[in-house]
Amino acid sequence: MRLNIHLTAALSLPAPTPTTLMVEAADLGAAQRLEESRLYVTPFRVAEPFRDFYHNPCRRLLMPAGDVRLEYVATVSLPGARPAGGEAYEADALHLPTETLLYTLPSRYCQSDLLVAMAADLFGGVRPGFARVQAVCDWINAHVTYQYGASDTGTSAYDTAAQRVGVCRDFAHLGIALCRALNVPARYVSGYCLGLVPPDFHAYFQAWVNGRWADFDATSALPRPALVRVAVGRDAADCAWATFYGYGETRWLSAEVTEARDDAEGDTET
Amino acid sequence: MRLNIHLTAALSLPAPTPTTLMVEAADLGAAQRLEESRLYVTPFRVAEPFRDFYHNPCRRLLMPAGDVRLEYVATVSLPGARPAGGEAYEADALHLPTETLLYTLPSRYCQSDLLVAMAADLFGGVRPGFARVQAVCDWINAHVTYQYGASDTGTSAYDTAAQRVGVCRDFAHLGIALCRALNVPARYVSGYCLGLVPPDFHAYFQAWVNGRWADFDATSALPRPALVRVAVGRDAADCAWATFYGYGETRWLSAEVTEARDDAEGDTET
Amino acid sequence: MRLNIHLTAALSLPAPTPTTLMVEAADLGAAQRLEESRLYVTPFRVAEPFRDFYHNPCRRLLMPAGDVRLEYVATVSLPGARPAGGEAYEADALHLPTETLLYTLPSRYCQSDLLVAMAADLFGGVRPGFARVQAVCDWINAHVTYQYGASDTGTSAYDTAAQRVGVCRDFAHLGIALCRALNVPARYVSGYCLGLVPPDFHAYFQAWVNGRWADFDATSALPRPALVRVAVGRDAADCAWATFYGYGETRWLSAEVTEARDDAEGDTET
Amino acid sequence: MRLNIHLTAALSLPAPTPTTLMVEAADLGAAQRLEESRLYVTPFRVAEPFRDFYHNPCRRLLMPAGDVRLEYVATVSLPGARPAGGEAYEADALHLPTETLLYTLPSRYCQSDLLVAMAADLFGGVRPGFARVQAVCDWINAHVTYQYGASDTGTSAYDTAAQRVGVCRDFAHLGIALCRALNVPARYVSGYCLGLVPPDFHAYFQAWVNGRWADFDATSALPRPALVRVAVGRDAADCAWATFYGYGETRWLSAEVTEARDDAEGDTET
Repeated sequence: MRLNIHLTAALSLPAPTPTTLMVEAADLGAAQRLEESRLYVTPFRVAEPFRDFYHNPCRRLLMPAGDVRLEYVATVSLPGARPAGGEAYEADALHLPTETLLYTLPSRYCQSDLLVAMAADLFGGVRPGFARVQAVCDWINAHVTYQYGASDTGTSAYDTAAQRVGVCRDFAHLGIALCRALNVPARYVSGYCLGLVPPDFHAYFQAWVNGRWADFDATSALPRPALVRVAVGRDAADCAWATFYGYGETRWLSAEVTEARDDAEGDTET
Repeated sequence: MRLNIHLTAALSLPAPTPTTLMVEAADLGAAQRLEESRLYVTPFRVAEPFRDFYHNPCRRLLMPAGDVRLEYVATVSLPGARPAGGEAYEADALHLPTETLLYTLPSRYCQSDLLVAMAADLFGGVRPGFARVQAVCDWINAHVTYQYGASDTGTSAYDTAAQRVGVCRDFAHLGIALCRALNVPARYVSGYCLGLVPPDFHAYFQAWVNGRWADFDATSALPRPALVRVAVGRDAADCAWATFYGYGETRWLSAEVTEARDDAEGDTET
Repeated sequence: MRLNIHLTAALSLPAPTPTTLMVEAADLGAAQRLEESRLYVTPFRVAEPFRDFYHNPCRRLLMPAGDVRLEYVATVSLPGARPAGGEAYEADALHLPTETLLYTLPSRYCQSDLLVAMAADLFGGVRPGFARVQAVCDWINAHVTYQYGASDTGTSAYDTAAQRVGVCRDFAHLGIALCRALNVPARYVSGYCLGLVPPDFHAYFQAWVNGRWADFDATSALPRPALVRVAVGRDAADCAWATFYGYGETRWLSAEVTEARDDAEGDTET
Repeated sequence: MRLNIHLTAALSLPAPTPTTLMVEAADLGAAQRLEESRLYVTPFRVAEPFRDFYHNPCRRLLMPAGDVRLEYVATVSLPGARPAGGEAYEADALHLPTETLLYTLPSRYCQSDLLVAMAADLFGGVRPGFARVQAVCDWINAHVTYQYGASDTGTSAYDTAAQRVGVCRDFAHLGIALCRALNVPARYVSGYCLGLVPPDFHAYFQAWVNGRWADFDATSALPRPALVRVAVGRDAADCAWATFYGYGETRWLSAEVTEARDDAEGDTET
């Protein structure tokens, strides 16, 4: 499947402001191939590319004062079929790759240390592995209400565990926190999603099961038709699409994702 | 049933400290008759009796510096049988007695405003009335683990909703908060309980159902053999057995409750 | 001084909803005389008056589904001069009137138990009495930024102590919590205020100093020209202008307060 | 200066438990030379060494059930004099090395996003650079009380900002959060400290000023005579000396640090 991504955003800044952007689709080889990827800042500024701690593609620049327009255009090619679940197993903590251990620890929005009893109560009896993480997602999907405006940037998994209302970011945080409380490495993914209404950034998570990072999306009862990863991190604090070192306001934002129709190439993957 | 209550406590204070005590069993007429009730402070101090906002029996005094010993001895007579549930009904908010409305509002440890979605998710489909409050208690009893030391005086219903571990105070707070989130008036009760191990103060709650305040105790899967009410309030903040206007330390405390054996009176209620 | 109050509000309700209203100016004798006070609900409904726990004037009614318009018109007469401070003293906790003790305890939005060290650090060295409470207000006014939208109905004094941004409700909560942490009884007041822009409800607080409840308003560096009390309580949870037992949305609200010009009466109090 | 470190700890585990240990002094070249470093687990187990995300020296092993004794013995050589402050400057966010940007983001225990107004209020007028971070430490040292037992493993910088009481871990978290709120990269350091009573692990922090990571210790009004770094991370969640994937209890722990007296070598660095 090939996807076109078209992000447009209007920002307003009271003063020139150092800013980090994380809006570019990651280039992950066969798993997510970046055919085209262009970022425009108007008025024109060079946005210096760099990789953060997690090797996510980032840019930084001095945003000018006043109105700024961002546009990001990309074409991404995803494999036609997701890898099957394979034999379900889950490494115990002793045999996890050491680079996954960071993702077992609590973080800003995923206070897994406080949700150990809840996770044990709900999922302690479920057999470890892919199905258990799916059970976490199913529980969240059934018991947390999706509602704009009921949460904000201060809302954490701890809040969502009690308040049971939020948006994709909150669903992901709760999923991550419950996985970590079960000693399953889990990390946050920001990205693009085909079929979202309204067209916006999306957030989901990955858990380390069956020896790989597998995608999970607690916001949706059904598997998503296509997810495009931008950044991974411990939670939303690490994956903000824009981090202003100062103040910046997002006036509006649209992240359209459409399936690329390219007859010439005879795309048969749909 | 007649009960003897014997409270002994050792306090230590660095300086003379104004203190409010709420340790005396309430005299509630037939529902809880106070046959005897004596409070001793050593070194001797007069503890002035008064009624607080909720008409609970309180005392206040200037606690002397150093070691202070408290002793409270009471005999309480309770009706042999609890009033039956009667026809189950629950007043809607419009027809609640106005004096119960205070107990529909959130309080320090019972943030019912934040648990509306959780209450609706868990109990929205249960028929209102006594049975629904009992369902709240049953859920708490099944999903919250009783454990000393896992909570402290800062722990609230919001915390317990997520952390799912605590003591009787926390069980009561969560029960109250969930009831209020369902628009059922609920209040905290501090008191004494027959059969507690170790012998300590107890906390439970009352909900307004079937036109009266009915006792509920989420800490126990079975009905308690006997509960003796000391104080009611919106939550533990209103019912502390000792409030120090300054600093005071409780070195130890024992609250023994035993069934009075009074052959002469031919007590046949057991 | 005589004031005209004109409240208009537009509500929208998805279903008939039991509702409590607290919008009427209190009649406090010479301290605040209610000359006229009329509440209209459109479509017409009878709103039954009652007194709550704190003896505040309340109304309750079954709000009809759909659009509802509220109008409240009042004329209030206030004494021309506020009582002078008098000799500054502050009762210690032992000699406080028992009916003020409730207001030394923590509540939903005023977690004084958690701010004891902060209060002692900032105000422990200030001589007790009126001036110390004023010092609390001055500190809040200097260190908390007034900003719409930076706080919400979940924000508490604990949050404001750290976040240092909010609206009048938050300023009042922090003032109350710091007073209680100093063992000074303090309570929340909702009401009307002359000169507010935009014209809205106001919140301030009262502390028990010099043997009476004195008004304090941490939101303003200067004394307010006129404050009209509607309700008192432990915090905003007790004084909400509308409590919906269900769901209700406020589309807009205006609370205009103007000085009454009544030449005929020869009002010489200005 | 040469230091001997002697850590002894007694653990108790109900079952064999995968465990990560971070107790070994880091080998940082001239800045902190590791002359000797030996870790013993009794009963004997091999503790596999690895480097975590931050390149901290870690070990992991399957802790056996029952009583386990840990002993760590090290000799560390530190430069006789700390590098002088040099010309004070602080990079703006645009010119920070990209590898420091992670440490400008909020984390589990350092919610810098919530303390922006507090940091601006207290330190907005202080000239950026080393002296401003020192001003942060001085403020914390003056306004937060050091007290065992007043905080726990759930306590965060947000709590300490309001509660103003805690231990070295809390002091470090608040320092880090305030620095990040000022856009100064700051990170947590766990380690050993000469002269602590009782001998325990220590926590302090580093801020990126003058183009390097500089040590700061808000717990102490005076500079520490010697700090030995074990691990760095975003906060205490990343630097726990023992992380149990299951349950483990620390029965007691002692971390003695003494100055090495080695006449033969003619140590003249004191």
